[in-house]
Formats: sequence, C-alpha cells, structure tokens
Amino acid sequence: MSNTGYGELKLFCGSSVPTLGKEIADYLHLPTGRVTLMRFADGEIYCRYEENARGEDIFVIQSTCHPVNEHLMELLIMVDALRRASAGRITAVVPYYGYGRKDKKDAPREAITGRLVADLLVTAGVHRVLTIDLHAGQIEGFFNIPVDHLRALPLFADYLGRKGLTNGVVVAPDDGAVRRSKQLADRLDLPLAVIFQRRVGTDTKEPVQVVGDVEGLTPILIEDIIDTAGTVTRAADVLLAKGCVPEIHVCATHAVFAGPAMERLSRPEIREAIVTNTIPVPPERLLPKMTVLSAAPLLAEAIRRIHLNQSVSLLFT
Amino acid sequence: MSNTGYGELKLFCGSSVPTLGKEIADYLHLPTGRVTLMRFADGEIYCRYEENARGEDIFVIQSTCHPVNEHLMELLIMVDALRRASAGRITAVVPYYGYGRKDKKDAPREAITGRLVADLLVTAGVHRVLTIDLHAGQIEGFFNIPVDHLRALPLFADYLGRKGLTNGVVVAPDDGAVRRSKQLADRLDLPLAVIFQRRVGTDTKEPVQVVGDVEGLTPILIEDIIDTAGTVTRAADVLLAKGCVPEIHVCATHAVFAGPAMERLSRPEIREAIVTNTIPVPPERLLPKMTVLSAAPLLAEAIRRIHLNQSVSLLFT
Amino acid sequence: MSNTGYGELKLFCGSSVPTLGKEIADYLHLPTGRVTLMRFADGEIYCRYEENARGEDIFVIQSTCHPVNEHLMELLIMVDALRRASAGRITAVVPYYGYGRKDKKDAPREAITGRLVADLLVTAGVHRVLTIDLHAGQIEGFFNIPVDHLRALPLFADYLGRKGLTNGVVVAPDDGAVRRSKQLADRLDLPLAVIFQRRVGTDTKEPVQVVGDVEGLTPILIEDIIDTAGTVTRAADVLLAKGCVPEIHVCATHAVFAGPAMERLSRPEIREAIVTNTIPVPPERLLPKMTVLSAAPLLAEAIRRIHLNQSVSLLFT
Amino acid sequence: MSNTGYGELKLFCGSSVPTLGKEIADYLHLPTGRVTLMRFADGEIYCRYEENARGEDIFVIQSTCHPVNEHLMELLIMVDALRRASAGRITAVVPYYGYGRKDKKDAPREAITGRLVADLLVTAGVHRVLTIDLHAGQIEGFFNIPVDHLRALPLFADYLGRKGLTNGVVVAPDDGAVRRSKQLADRLDLPLAVIFQRRVGTDTKEPVQVVGDVEGLTPILIEDIIDTAGTVTRAADVLLAKGCVPEIHVCATHAVFAGPAMERLSRPEIREAIVTNTIPVPPERLLPKMTVLSAAPLLAEAIRRIHLNQSVSLLFT
Amino acid sequence: MSNTGYGELKLFCGSSVPTLGKEIADYLHLPTGRVTLMRFADGEIYCRYEENARGEDIFVIQSTCHPVNEHLMELLIMVDALRRASAGRITAVVPYYGYGRKDKKDAPREAITGRLVADLLVTAGVHRVLTIDLHAGQIEGFFNIPVDHLRALPLFADYLGRKGLTNGVVVAPDDGAVRRSKQLADRLDLPLAVIFQRRVGTDTKEPVQVVGDVEGLTPILIEDIIDTAGTVTRAADVLLAKGCVPEIHVCATHAVFAGPAMERLSRPEIREAIVTNTIPVPPERLLPKMTVLSAAPLLAEAIRRIHLNQSVSLLFT
Amino acid sequence: MSNTGYGELKLFCGSSVPTLGKEIADYLHLPTGRVTLMRFADGEIYCRYEENARGEDIFVIQSTCHPVNEHLMELLIMVDALRRASAGRITAVVPYYGYGRKDKKDAPREAITGRLVADLLVTAGVHRVLTIDLHAGQIEGFFNIPVDHLRALPLFADYLGRKGLTNGVVVAPDDGAVRRSKQLADRLDLPLAVIFQRRVGTDTKEPVQVVGDVEGLTPILIEDIIDTAGTVTRAADVLLAKGCVPEIHVCATHAVFAGPAMERLSRPEIREAIVTNTIPVPPERLLPKMTVLSAAPLLAEAIRRIHLNQSVSLLFT
Repeated sequence: MSNTGYGELKLFCGSSVPTLGKEIADYLHLPTGRVTLMRFADGEIYCRYEENARGEDIFVIQSTCHPVNEHLMELLIMVDALRRASAGRITAVVPYYGYGRKDKKDAPREAITGRLVADLLVTAGVHRVLTIDLHAGQIEGFFNIPVDHLRALPLFADYLGRKGLTNGVVVAPDDGAVRRSKQLADRLDLPLAVIFQRRVGTDTKEPVQVVGDVEGLTPILIEDIIDTAGTVTRAADVLLAKGCVPEIHVCATHAVFAGPAMERLSRPEIREAIVTNTIPVPPERLLPKMTVLSAAPLLAEAIRRIHLNQSVSLLFT
Repeated sequence: MSNTGYGELKLFCGSSVPTLGKEIADYLHLPTGRVTLMRFADGEIYCRYEENARGEDIFVIQSTCHPVNEHLMELLIMVDALRRASAGRITAVVPYYGYGRKDKKDAPREAITGRLVADLLVTAGVHRVLTIDLHAGQIEGFFNIPVDHLRALPLFADYLGRKGLTNGVVVAPDDGAVRRSKQLADRLDLPLAVIFQRRVGTDTKEPVQVVGDVEGLTPILIEDIIDTAGTVTRAADVLLAKGCVPEIHVCATHAVFAGPAMERLSRPEIREAIVTNTIPVPPERLLPKMTVLSAAPLLAEAIRRIHLNQSVSLLFT
Repeated sequence: MSNTGYGELKLFCGSSVPTLGKEIADYLHLPTGRVTLMRFADGEIYCRYEENARGEDIFVIQSTCHPVNEHLMELLIMVDALRRASAGRITAVVPYYGYGRKDKKDAPREAITGRLVADLLVTAGVHRVLTIDLHAGQIEGFFNIPVDHLRALPLFADYLGRKGLTNGVVVAPDDGAVRRSKQLADRLDLPLAVIFQRRVGTDTKEPVQVVGDVEGLTPILIEDIIDTAGTVTRAADVLLAKGCVPEIHVCATHAVFAGPAMERLSRPEIREAIVTNTIPVPPERLLPKMTVLSAAPLLAEAIRRIHLNQSVSLLFT
Repeated sequence: MSNTGYGELKLFCGSSVPTLGKEIADYLHLPTGRVTLMRFADGEIYCRYEENARGEDIFVIQSTCHPVNEHLMELLIMVDALRRASAGRITAVVPYYGYGRKDKKDAPREAITGRLVADLLVTAGVHRVLTIDLHAGQIEGFFNIPVDHLRALPLFADYLGRKGLTNGVVVAPDDGAVRRSKQLADRLDLPLAVIFQRRVGTDTKEPVQVVGDVEGLTPILIEDIIDTAGTVTRAADVLLAKGCVPEIHVCATHAVFAGPAMERLSRPEIREAIVTNTIPVPPERLLPKMTVLSAAPLLAEAIRRIHLNQSVSLLFT
Repeated sequence: MSNTGYGELKLFCGSSVPTLGKEIADYLHLPTGRVTLMRFADGEIYCRYEENARGEDIFVIQSTCHPVNEHLMELLIMVDALRRASAGRITAVVPYYGYGRKDKKDAPREAITGRLVADLLVTAGVHRVLTIDLHAGQIEGFFNIPVDHLRALPLFADYLGRKGLTNGVVVAPDDGAVRRSKQLADRLDLPLAVIFQRRVGTDTKEPVQVVGDVEGLTPILIEDIIDTAGTVTRAADVLLAKGCVPEIHVCATHAVFAGPAMERLSRPEIREAIVTNTIPVPPERLLPKMTVLSAAPLLAEAIRRIHLNQSVSLLFT
Repeated sequence: MSNTGYGELKLFCGSSVPTLGKEIADYLHLPTGRVTLMRFADGEIYCRYEENARGEDIFVIQSTCHPVNEHLMELLIMVDALRRASAGRITAVVPYYGYGRKDKKDAPREAITGRLVADLLVTAGVHRVLTIDLHAGQIEGFFNIPVDHLRALPLFADYLGRKGLTNGVVVAPDDGAVRRSKQLADRLDLPLAVIFQRRVGTDTKEPVQVVGDVEGLTPILIEDIIDTAGTVTRAADVLLAKGCVPEIHVCATHAVFAGPAMERLSRPEIREAIVTNTIPVPPERLLPKMTVLSAAPLLAEAIRRIHLNQSVSLLFT
C-alpha cells in the first residue's frame, strides 16, 4: 500500500481521450485498467470494470469534450460503478471541463451549468478532481472536494520563449482574456494590448476599441479555449486594420474547434496555432501550422504526487 | 393561486417529445411555456426561460429517449435553471425513463444507472416525478421524492378488448415479462404461456422451453419496451415453430425501436405492433401495421390532479 | 494494519443470529467482539462496546428477522455507537434483510419500507452492506454505499445435485419466482413449469393455470423466503391435482416460518424442506425433514475478502 | 386552504395512543384519518393511507412508548408513506419521545440514541415535531427542523394548587430532577429539598444525603418519567426515615410504568400518583390512587395553532 | 396570504445596516420587525424574535461588512432562530457580501472563503439570497438556492450621466476591473483605458503599462469595492503621470474604507468619490467630496417583487 | 504511516491559544505546523498553510473564546483550507467550546447556537472533535461525527485533595451546577449543599433558599465556566450570611472572566480561584490567588491516542 491509506494507483480511461490516457499511463509505467465501455443500440452507455477495484486509488481520465453530454454521462456512470465496486478513492481526471464557460448567470432564468456539473460529479461519487485551465478559478469553489487545478500557461510560455519572437505584443482579444494575457505578457516580458467590443449606441462611430499599441508588432493571442475561433477572427481583423505584422500567433489550452473553426484558423495571417491535447484533434483537422503540446507529463506527474500525498503545487516551481 | 400553495400550473417542454407536449398542453387548455433551448457549436446545451417562473407549479416534460444522454442533460439543465429562477415546485414529467433497465447489478463492478439517474434528477433540483411504466416498480424506491407512476396496460387492454380477438393467448417472451403478461391475460381473460431461454449445457438438446399451449392460438406479446425487437423475433420464431396462428400481436409502452427493430417488426407474421407516444416514432419509421395510442390524456389528467392536490390513483378506477 | 487502510478485522454480533455469528467467527479464527446489549424494563435497547473500536474494520452481524423492528433498531443503535466510537469502517452484515419484500408500491399511499430501511442504515452510519438473496436485485440500488450481494442458489444446486433426483421438474409457484426457478433449472438441467394465480373474472372457470408439464415428475420449488408457507401449500395442491409425484422438494434461503408455516410444511407430500441459517430456526420448530445448509462459510469468506480488498465476485466462480 | 400554504389539517393516529388521538380529534372537531396499519405474520408492519394526503397539513400522532421499537418503526413507516403520497407538511406529534433519556454518553462507546432517533425521523421525512417534556431541553437541538416543546408542569401545578396542600415540600429525588423540582416549588411557593445518592467510598458512613428540611412536611416529587419507580421508592424510604409526613405525592408526565413499578407505587405511604396520558395506562394497571390528567387539550391547541401559523408559545401565558 | 404560499412579508434588520434597513422598510411602508440582538459580556451574540414568525415570508437584512465575522455570525444566528421558529421562507438580504473577494485559490492550501460563507448560510437555514454586486458573478454558483443579484452600475451611470462630464475616459485600474469598466464606458459612451501592474523581471524597465489614451482626459474609475484605496491611489499616480486632467472620479458600490482609505481619498486630484450605502459610512469619515447613492429603493423593490413572485430581472429594464 | 490509515500527525494552532498549543506540541515532541493567519485591513481573515497537508492526520487547536466570533470563523476557515488541501483527517481540538451554554431554547424564537456551531464545523469539513467540559453532555449529540469529551474534574479533585482541606463542603451555587458539584463531593468525600434562587412571588419572604448545612464549613464551588463571576458572587453573599468560613474556594474549567469578573473575584472572602488554561488568562488579569492548571498533558495524550487508534477513555482510569 502507498502512504495514502489507499491501495494501488490504477488508471482507467474514458472514451474521450484514449491517446492522452495512454501517454499518461506510459509516463507512469502503468497499464490502463481494463474496463468495458459500450453503447447499446438505443444509445445507453454500459460500463463494467474487468478487474478488481476494491480499496484501490483510482484515477478516471475523461475530458468532457464534444460530444459533451455523452462524455459526461460516461464519466458519471464509470464513477458510479467504481463506487459500487468499493473503490478506495476516486479521482476524476478531467483535462477539459466542459460547460465550464457557463459559470455564472448572464441573464435571468439561465442555468449555471458549470456548478451543476460539479454537483453531478459529486453525486456520482467522485472524491477529488484533477483538471487543467478551468475557464474561471472560481469553478474550484463550485466543489467542496479537493480540486487540483493545473495551468498550461507555462507550456506556452516555454514554447514561445524558445521560439525567440522579437517585436511581439500580447493582445487580449476581449475583456474576459485580460488576466490570462497579462500573465503571458509578464512571463515573456512583452507589452500588452486589449481589444474591446463596444456596445453600439445610436451615435457610436466605432464598434471596436483597441487600447495599447499593436502597429508593427507581432500579436500573440492566448485563450483558454478556441471554440468556433470567432473571437480570434474578429481580433485578427482588428489587429490587421491597426497595422500589426500579419503573423498572428494563437495559443489555447483546449482545442474545441467547433463549427467554422478550422476554416477560420486557415487564413494565412494566422501564422501558428498552439494547443494542448486535453481535447484530441483528429488528424484530418490538424493543419500544418498547428502545434500540439502534450499535457500528459503534467497530468501524470500530478497523479503520481496525489497518490503519494506529495504537494502538487511544487510542480509549478 | 391553486390550492397547492404554489402558483400557476406551467408546462415547459424539452426537445424530446414536442408533439406529446403539445397534446398535453392542448388537453389542459394551456400554452407550453416559452423556453430557449439551443446547442452551441461545441455541443453544449443552453437553456433560458423566457417567462417568469417564480413560485409557479412547473412541469417539465422530457422523455430520456434516444439520444438519451443529450435528453437527460437537457432535462437536468432545464431543472437547474428553474431552481435558480425560484420556481415554486418542479415536477419532471418523464414519459420514458431511460436507463431504467439498468436497475440492478447483473455482474460485479457494474453501475446501477437507473439509480444514478434518479440521484442526478434530485441533485439538479427536481421535487417530484411523473412517469409511465418504469421497467421495474422498485425504481420508485430509487427516489425519496414523490413519484407518480402511471401504467399504459389499460390502454392496451382496452384497445385489444375492442378488437375482439378470439383464440388468443398471452405469451411472456422471457422470464422478465411474466408479471406484465399475466396482468394483461387477467384483463383480457385469456390463457398464458411463457418462453424460457435455457442456459445451454453440454447435453442440453433444446435451448428454448415453451411452457403452456400456443398451438392454434393467436399470440399476444406485451413488453414495457421494444428496443431492437430481438426478444420479439426470437419469441415469434419459437411460437411459429410450435404451431401458433401466424398473426402475432405485439404491445409495448415505449417504442425505442433501435438498430434492426424496424426490419424485424416488418416480417409478415407480426400482424400488429401497438405502442404509445412516450417516445416519438418518426413518420418514416411508422409501418402501416403500427398503432400509436396517445399517452397524452393520461399524463395531462395526472398533471391536472397533481396541481390540484387530487388523488392520482383515482385515475385508474 | 491490513491493506485496506483500516485497522484490524473485528466481528460483533447482534442478538438475532448468535450461532451463525459464532460459526463465522470460528471460520475466520477470530473471537466475536465483546459488546453489552441489554433491554431496559421499558423495552429500550442499550448498547456499549467493551473493547476499543477506533479505526478498526468492523463487521456487525445482524439479521433483521423476527422480531424485525427490535432487531433493526438494535442494529441501528450498534452502528451509532460504533460511529461515535470512531470505528474505521462499519460493514453491516445482514444475512436476512427484513422488509425487503416491500420494495415497491403495489397500491397508492404505501411506504416503500425496503428503501426506508436502507436509508435508516446509512443514517445510522453504515459504510457498506453484506447480505444474501435480497428479495429483488434492485434493492442494491436503494443504497449508494457498496453492497456485496451473495446468492445461496449454488448451495441448493450442489445439495440437490448430490442427491441425484431423477425425473425432476423445477416449478415456479408464482410469477415472482420465475427468474430464480429458471436459474435453478439451468443449474440442474431440468425442465421448468410455472403456476399462475389468475384474477377471477365473472366467467373464469379456473383460478389457477399451470404452464408446463408436471405430471409424473418430482417437483422442486425454490423461493427466497418461506413465510407462512401459503405459496408452497397452494402450489402443492395444484401440482398434486395435476398428477405430480407426491414428493415435493422445497428450497428457500430465508426460513421466516411465520404463523401456520410449520403445520403447512408438515404435510407428507412435502418430502423435504431445505433452508439456510440466515434466520435461526429454533430446535422445537425443526422438523425431521428439514435440512439446514450453513451460510457461514459463504459469509465468512466474503468478510475475509472485503477486509483484504479482494474480489468478492470471485467467490462464485 | 389555511394560511400556512398547506392544505387541510388532517390527523392520523399510530397504534400507541388511540384514546389520546381520539380526544385530540374531538377537541378539534375533526375525524382521525383512515389509515390501514397491520402486522404481517412475520412481524413486519404494513401501512396504507385510505384517503388522499396530497398537499395536506398532516399530523401523525404516535408516542414511542413500549414496545418502543415497534412504535418507532411504525411512525417511520407512516411518515415514509406520507412523503411518497405527496403530503404537504408532515408533523410528528410524539407525546412521549422514547429513548430521550439516552441523550448523552455516560460511558465510552455508547450510542446517543436520542439523537439517532431524531435523525431517523428526519430521514423518514418528518418536517416538524410536537412533543411534551423531553428528558432534556437539549434534545430540541438534536433536530434542525422546528420542534414545539410543550410542558406538562402547569397541569400538575394547577392540579396540586387546587388541592390546597398545606405543609408541603417539593423534593428532588436525585440531581437530575433538581431543575424541574425547583420550577414546581416556585409555582406552588413551597420550600425545596434534594436527595443525593452518594458514591460510597471506603469510609463513607451514609450513602444518601438529604439537603433541606423534610421532617413533618408532606413531600411532593416530580419527575418527567416514572419508569420502574425505583427512584421514587428510594426517595420515599429516605424521606420517611427523615420523618416526613407519610403521604407522598408523586407527579410524572410520562407513565412508563415498567417492571415492578405498579407494586412499588402501591405502598401506602405513596398517597397519590399523578400522571398524564402521553402513554396510555391500561385499566388493569390503574390504581385507585392514580390521577390521569389529559394532555389532549394542550396538544390539540398546539396543533391548531401550528396549522394556523399562530404562536404556540402564547399557549403558556 | 400573498401569492407566494407564504405568510406576510416581514423585515428584520441585523446590526450592520440600521439606516439602510429603515429606508427599505419605509419604502415598503412596513415596520422593521422587533428582534432582540445583544452581546453578552463574553462577546457571544444572543438573538430572540419578539414577534411571531411562523409561516411568514421573512427578509433578514445584514451586510457582512466590518467587523465581518461578528456580522456574519449574527446573521447565521438570526437565521437559525427563524428556522427553529418555523419561519415560512427565509431570505438573507446581504447588500455587501463579505469574503466575496476570496472566491478562488490564488495559491495552494488557501481557503475559498466566499464558498465557505455560502455553505454556512445554507447550513443555518437560508432559503434564498438577495445581494448587490458580488465580486464575481460565479459566486452565484456557490449557492444552489436562488440568488437575486442586483447591480449598482446603473445608479452610477445615471448619476454621472446627469453630471454631463465632457472629455471623460473610463479607466480600469487593474485587470480585474476591466469588465465592469467596459460596461460603464458602454453606458456613458466613453472611451476606455486599462492600467496593468506588470510583474517586474530582471530587465523590466517599467513596472506599469497603461494601454489606451488618457492624456488630457478626465478619468472615471469604477470598482466594486474601495478597501484601502490602494488601487485607486496607484491608478491616480499613473494617470497623472500620463497627463490626465487632475479631476479623477471614483465610483464603488461597497465603501469598505479600511486602513488608510480616507487619507488616500483626500488627495485633491480625486475630485469625487461616489459610493452606495450597502456599507454605512460613519459621518466622521464622510468627506465633502463623497456622494452616497442609496441602494434602498433597489433592494426594497426587489424584496417586494420576490414576495409577490414577480420577476426581479424586470427591475433592470 | 501510523496505524490509522492517515499520514503523519500534524498540529496547527489558531490564534486563540498559542501557549497551550505550544505546550501540547512540546509534550508530543512535535513542532506546530507553519500556517499564515492574518487579518486584512477590512477585518477579513486569511489563511494559508505553509507546508504540505495531503493525507496527513491534522489537529487544529483553537478555543472559541473571546472574541468568539473571530476565533470561530478563523477555525472554520482553517478547516476549509485543509479540506481543499486534501488533508487526510481533520480533528478540531476545541478546548473551550464557545456558545455551548446556548444548548436549548429557554424562550420561544431563540437560536440554539450550540447546535448551529456544531453544524458549521461539520459544514467546513471537520471529521472529529476533541474538547473539554462541554456545558452539557448532550452537546456531544449535536454532532454525528466522533467527539472525544475530556473532563477537567479530576485535575481539580487531585489539586484540592493534595491541599488537604478540612471542614469542607461542596456547594452548588445554582440548580445547573448540582451534578458537577455532586461529582466533586463524591471524589473528595465531602458533604454537599445547594443554593436555589427562588422566583419571587407576591408573598415570598426569602428570594434564596440554601438546602444543606454550610455554617462553620469551608465552601468549595465548582463550575464549568466563570463568566462575569455573578453566580460566584451571589453564592458567596448567601454562604457568608449563613455563617460559612470566609475562605471560599472556586474551581472552573474555563476562565472566561468577562466584564466585572476580576473585580468580583478580588474580594478577600474568595480565598482561591482554580482554573485551567483552555482559555488564556493574560498576565495582567492573573490575581495572585489564582491557580492555573494546565490542560496540555490531557489534550496531548488524547491527541496521541487518537492518532494511534488507542482508547481515549483509558485516559481516565
């Protein structure tokens, strides 16, 4: 037994991130556990573990990415089966936490789905959560169970730092990206600029305001998520109109890549798109200008430390 | 205010059963409430109510039929939004309760998804449930909130009784269908037979045993669910081999109709398939020999009685 | 410390099954723990443990058999005292789970006592449950804590197999016993028959229908419980009228033996009654034709495996 | 509808206090609701309500007196059935709260059954509690639901005041009765005395110490409960030895009367025993010197006020 | 009874905001309820309601401002007493939600006190919350009970709009204030600027970066809270150095005014400080240049609508 | 790892009892853990642990003494941070449990703050509690988590026994102190007396009644708490009037010493005041006649035994 009071470390992998799961397992020199996951003809999910889980220290790896409802239910069912199989401790490893953007009410009579999902996980029997780059840090507070919240920003900063971009400027494409952009700018020691979409009044002449200088500079955008790439596209248009160098670099932890995202990212002024593998990008959607940084070492090391009751925060120092 | 202490009766309809929802609303001379339900490009569901729900007596109608995980999450999100919008009482009207067949462990280390779903509904904020023909009555016990559990069997008995079948025999196609079949046989005053799939041992000659007489009789099968129609098909083969009249009648509350179901039901020896509209059957899958009985009057009357604090059990007398 | 993270395995025994408890302890080469259980003159139960329970892996053995409410309250109080005494893990070993037959609503405005009892156990502080032959598998779903659900059917199959009955037929005495009867028939490779009590209509001639052949065959009945033996008696009457061999064998896991049970089982056509000791049968009620198979090895082995975090399902292979 | 937001006031009566229940109903000019309560041959309790309970303001009257475990389980089952029948609000009217004396740990590894019972009631679905003379006021704090806690002391004070005892002294028979005795002495404007059972050391000469004067005075004892009457007997011996007038008056709210109580109370020096009907005393145990004061008006008035959202505390002014 | 199913609207006021409470009551033409709140010599808080609360629709008004722990405990105790007094519905009206800034983990092994406080309120028995300008919208998701979250921004926009500032620029003094500043800029149709405090590296020349033009413009700062006014001071220094008009306007909903705040706000370049009365500012700390806008009409109207089950979101249109 | 299944024993100390915490740590040959506890200018508490707590067996030492609300909130925040830091087991060591005197309702519409505090501790994440001399044993029942409840009475009995007082009498100064006084009298083999404050009626001549002899004897008073010393003062007046030896000894576990306590204890007839250090008495308030017995060995030994899963009750034998 490890010094956690639980049994062996065991990894099980949901159907969302098989490759990432395998990478994590390899890093830890462990097999992934045998679990039958199937869908009946009517769409219901069936889960059965093919090996003993009693008392063990179980990590279930599942991103709740597209199709989000399928992957979320699969995760809940996997956890329920573990609870009933007397697992010692169940950690949900959720590299991409879907519905995280719905973390508050922007209009009356909406759901706060990010909180609902937290409650569903706890209801199913999760004891702790390991994740990367939640849309807002407050989501940690949606849980009362321990959450280990990793950041991919150092991966991007290291990668970009090694590239040696000169003349760069970090641009926050909207007000929600300001904090993250500032952190990257601090790491890279670059200036910042911010783009605001202004509410268009009767006599507003300009719907967009760019604060900070971008002319003649190479923009670097950083977001937690690239969804339809709409924000990136709008930002690119504005920056180019303001005279930036037409070689925009885009970083995002979670490559949702929905709807017109691929088409939008294909425009030549976007020089590079750097993402992680918290959501798998199928090969046919992987443009040559895309770079995928692996989150596996980060996750694997965190899993190892959790199992050994070692500090996870030391990972970042 | 009605005499429940809650406000007005309001109906909202999820995306699974729009026609049934409309029928229920018409029966009650009510509009269905205005609610925005949409899916973002990345597949996440968004819900916003377009009218005030404070203190009202809300009924949310949603079958958790195919795609079950989508419909279930939609229901959970609709309920979360209502809770946060200060709804007075939230009744989940779930004509078809998906995952209900996974109500126990048939092997170790499985989930009991039927219980998990009950817990998820309560976690999201449901105060009571209205449903039809749960796979097992014990599912009521998965909830500690009140459940009104309606039965469609009288609809089938009335319909078949009006047809005036002579020479009929109710056949339970497997051991799980015995109780329901007996109830129908009692209602129609017909004899019973049972088909058993036997575990094949080394020296077992016959893999199937039919107990009771079927030769020269017209079989009536009744199930809670027709899924892939595999059970019906196997039963038909056995009954025909035993010399039954080749005009088999099949009743089922929930028309899941997955995979090869339509092809299997098309065989001519199946004379009629009688289902309800707890799950919508798209027109292109509606064979001429299918009869759809509407569950709307039953559900609407139950909703009315719940809102007025009247006995729902009197519905059945 | 064992590899569960809990302390020593300790057994404590409620007042319902002292002999079974002793047998289990002997099998495990352990003493039963010292606990004072007494009733005050006014009927209230008092419980005090006479040895340290802090952090230990405690198994409390108690069947909630007659007097069910006394035994249930005793179990709840024993568990409350353990929780307050800082026991590490509390497993309720409930060989016979009373109130298990009330697992659904058969009429409106009834309780579902089987679920209520599950909630009471969890409220008192039980962490897991070990039991044999619940009335319905769905009762496992009444709990969200792990349940290890053992089956006595292999004991009966082995015993009957060794007897070498020829010409046997397994008969389900009513619709509720069909599934269990089929399993025994599969194990013994015997044919099946089913008895249905039909609802008596205005023109029903026969209140009972037997499907399958029994004439000239030796019937074997299997039930989870023999309560007043009413079902057995009615089945015997029907089978004898249909010409079966007048040597009926009756198996039941739980020997409730209430009211007229002993008298009814005394009739000579019942050749043998085979039960287990999940409920103690007092010597004066033990007819010569009764065989009591001990559930102690099964329970003891399960306890051992739970304590060692080994698979309990392997017990059955 | 009343102004509680719930439906009609309905009374249902458990099997412990049929007469008291009837008296309460008569006081309120209401019938007691129809409910089937039976015991199966194996001792399990069955409960079914024979009238609609949806949304109503239900009061279930049950003392958890001897046999305490039977009555408690009956109450829990009655509440579970009400919850599942969609009762609007469920108030447990528990005139005698059994297990209330076990409200703390007097030794290690004991249960605190008074708290356990509170949790069981809440688990079953009770929304509020109405009771009389809990053994300790702190038991109110075992609940987080509202508790209306009535006192019978004014009944005794009025009764004794009308008798016009001269030369009286209120005597607390042990340290636990001091507070209650003081309250009665204050009401009757009489002196107080206290009897202490001393722990007998090696050189202790007197095992009992009486503080205060009793010689030539008529003692009045008041307790919440007379159980075996052991305390009363010991007190009487001491008081008589100290020269009190041999006409002892004993008051107690709850007439548990277990074991040798009747015999002990029969001794002639005990002139009168005054109790209430929170626990029914069967006629054959009712000595001529016993006076039973009815708690029905107190309970009925409290029920009426709870239903009407009126202050219950005003009852006492 | 109102149409909420609860009784009368009653207001009770904690000791933090007596004037605001009185204003709200006056607006609603209601008295504030009588409640005794005192502190014992040892500092413990005592609460007793002097009027009946059964079934009523209670609003408890308390800002958890300085001394925050005192005011929070007072609120919790007030709520506990209401719950035990059978209040119908308990709404905590918390104009200033203390600890709201600790809504996420900025370092490992910190508390998320904003979530803890939410849980404490629910534990004490709060049914719903009414508040103004939470530090982050996600705090709504810390609750599963309904939260009505009002905004003071329109009050500031109206006030500033009426002043007719020309040549203004809204400046976000740090990255956390960007969103709120943008909303005010949109309302006033003014340009935006942002100040970033940069992480000082080895070769960073400028520790602050201002993006957007401020030279010759009149800055308007808006924050949810002015605590020690450190942010305001730093922003003023930067803006003045960049050549802004030395007439800075500062808006903040919650006037915490801790430590050196008064001294810092006194500097002449700060022309006006506009706050609300969610936290009372004692007269001796009220500088002539301070304007206090009352939140009472907003809160009172929201309370009225909550009581009448009317939409609160309509307040903003 | 110890044999509890948790990691190392770690002590952290809140700001209420630094000296006691240090003494406990020294006794256990352990350092106190490093934790940053600070107050912001606005009074909010900030907590951060400076060392890893994952999986460890953590004891947080904090008396909820004056200022009680500050110390309580500090404890809750310390526990929340530990929970989020994945502590293995969190034991709140609360030598003085503030609000414990409010353990029942003495008037309608009061809070039961002693229960509320118990719920707040559990809500924050406490797993178990260690405390000394709760105001009433029933407070243990306010928790469902294990409580180890130590008693200081043996410390007082030993101390007084060693002094060899002759001619002593233990006097309970009011009805609430009777039980504790009797225990001390038993230990010291001394007689008992009780003082009653009588409710003053129209014709009551004496507002105080002393039962038992005190003339010419040396009184010993024992209480759980000395708050304002009002009870002691009143008792001293009465005892002196009754002719006791003017050398009164006062014992109390918890030295709250609020308001006029010091002045009152200064009177010469009070010969000695003996307290423990569950609440620190600042040196300037420590009169020469005060004796402080340390509770550290008792608490330290209990902590050691809890960590080692050894019986704590053996501490008392």
